Amino acid sequence: MEQHSALSQPWTFTKMHGLGNDFVVLDGVRQSFSLRPEDCRRIADRHFGIGCDQILLVEPATDPDCDFRYRIFNADGSEVNQCGNGARCFAVFVRRSGLSDKNPLRVETRAGQMSLHIRPDGLVEVNMGVPILDPAAIPFRAEAPAREYALPFRGQALPIAAVSMGNPHLLLTVEQCDSAPVADWGAELEQHPAFPERCNVGFLEIQDPAHLRLRTWERGAGETLACGSNACAAVVAGQLWERLADTVQVTLPGGTLEIRWAGPGTPLYMVGPAEVVFDGTWIPEGEKT
Amino acid sequence: MEQHSALSQPWTFTKMHGLGNDFVVLDGVRQSFSLRPEDCRRIADRHFGIGCDQILLVEPATDPDCDFRYRIFNADGSEVNQCGNGARCFAVFVRRSGLSDKNPLRVETRAGQMSLHIRPDGLVEVNMGVPILDPAAIPFRAEAPAREYALPFRGQALPIAAVSMGNPHLLLTVEQCDSAPVADWGAELEQHPAFPERCNVGFLEIQDPAHLRLRTWERGAGETLACGSNACAAVVAGQLWERLADTVQVTLPGGTLEIRWAGPGTPLYMVGPAEVVFDGTWIPEGEKT
Repeated sequence: MEQHSALSQPWTFTKMHGLGNDFVVLDGVRQSFSLRPEDCRRIADRHFGIGCDQILLVEPATDPDCDFRYRIFNADGSEVNQCGNGARCFAVFVRRSGLSDKNPLRVETRAGQMSLHIRPDGLVEVNMGVPILDPAAIPFRAEAPAREYALPFRGQALPIAAVSMGNPHLLLTVEQCDSAPVADWGAELEQHPAFPERCNVGFLEIQDPAHLRLRTWERGAGETLACGSNACAAVVAGQLWERLADTVQVTLPGGTLEIRWAGPGTPLYMVGPAEVVFDGTWIPEGEKT
Repeated sequence: MEQHSALSQPWTFTKMHGLGNDFVVLDGVRQSFSLRPEDCRRIADRHFGIGCDQILLVEPATDPDCDFRYRIFNADGSEVNQCGNGARCFAVFVRRSGLSDKNPLRVETRAGQMSLHIRPDGLVEVNMGVPILDPAAIPFRAEAPAREYALPFRGQALPIAAVSMGNPHLLLTVEQCDSAPVADWGAELEQHPAFPERCNVGFLEIQDPAHLRLRTWERGAGETLACGSNACAAVVAGQLWERLADTVQVTLPGGTLEIRWAGPGTPLYMVGPAEVVFDGTWIPEGEKT
């Protein structure tokens, strides 16, 4: 194993995306990385670096029950718990790079263990765990768990659901996704005092029990092409409201996910694509010409 | 020479930037590219593709006086005449990739021949040609050439210069770059009827005869980190106004350029950096896993 400091030596990476949510994926098994926050910011910079929403790092597992450790760094250098679109890319990267052909893969994350299965059609199924509905654990300020809450918002009582998939989500329905006030309402609802750690805000257009259109205002990022965990939370909300079936096609601006959930207390499964765009080699300063 | 259709086969590229103006650079000598507009849009897309402001293509020269042909494609797929930051990257790419160690290089562009010289310090000097001051050739609506024009704007007569470096520029002075109304005025001045092909708008803070700070509203792109041709046009304007010396350090949001000009009728020289960020290989659909 070679020892690499992040920006002063060459290293290889793969650029991938899941529904337009894009990643620099690093093999931290055969290469060793110490990613300082400033290294992440440089790598994620779309003009001066490689450019991505998040950096995914494949490391050896520390938990003997797992095959690999899956770490996720935001473009600002902070390490985060969970990224569903990234998990699908992680699985394809591990197989394609020859790190393992085990299927399913069991990976260790800051949000717990996670199972990743590459299907024969090339789509990746992710066991996203059991959705969290207990208000204190979301965290969401409510006296008792409910299928629907009346949230005080701009002088009205807005009907919403509150769900955690390892991160907090607020879900509400709209007539039409295309005309939903995603930026206007999203920016304000993200910071609503009922969500002390803020929230991702999903605007659901339920077309029929098997088809949902969704736009998401992502915590700290604004509207995005595809927030996998918000899509999961949206299906949970729609089922709690008894308006969605067990298996739902969710259409996001970046593409479509299939989500299956058998109800409270059971794990939720997300199925979707993971695309490789290019392989690359970082060129350190001083070796430029 | 291998024949490559742009997105359905693998090909290599280098990602570079000049002051944050970033490029995907393609070797079209040892690889053959037919870049359709939709291929350019996909390559330039920062989430689904590689991501860049422009694509630079190195091709064999058609003019026997030139070493290579330098072609430039915008992110929307349109081919453009000139890009000064790109020209510096072009020179470093040609040397680093082993295509030629000739120095200076003479290249053929849609705006005419261009000479590129890699200096011993690694900075690249570009002969940007003779600045165009004739109003009809800019194009700019005025009865006769002048060092300064009074442009009708929001009920005032705004003092400006009009210069072409192969593309049209409007230059005006401000007290302080940091507080200049770049977005507000820039969007309106870009479309001013006196510039029938629109224009790039430069906001100049002249610190002393050898130091200029500059922010640019770029035609079709909004405010950018560094517009090389606008920096050249700004030095031309400042000299016409007798407020700048022959050699000027121009500080843009993305970094610093040195620009030399001996006055009307002589070519202008721009010196600045060209940075390699990474080498890559495009992975076509269907070879993903």
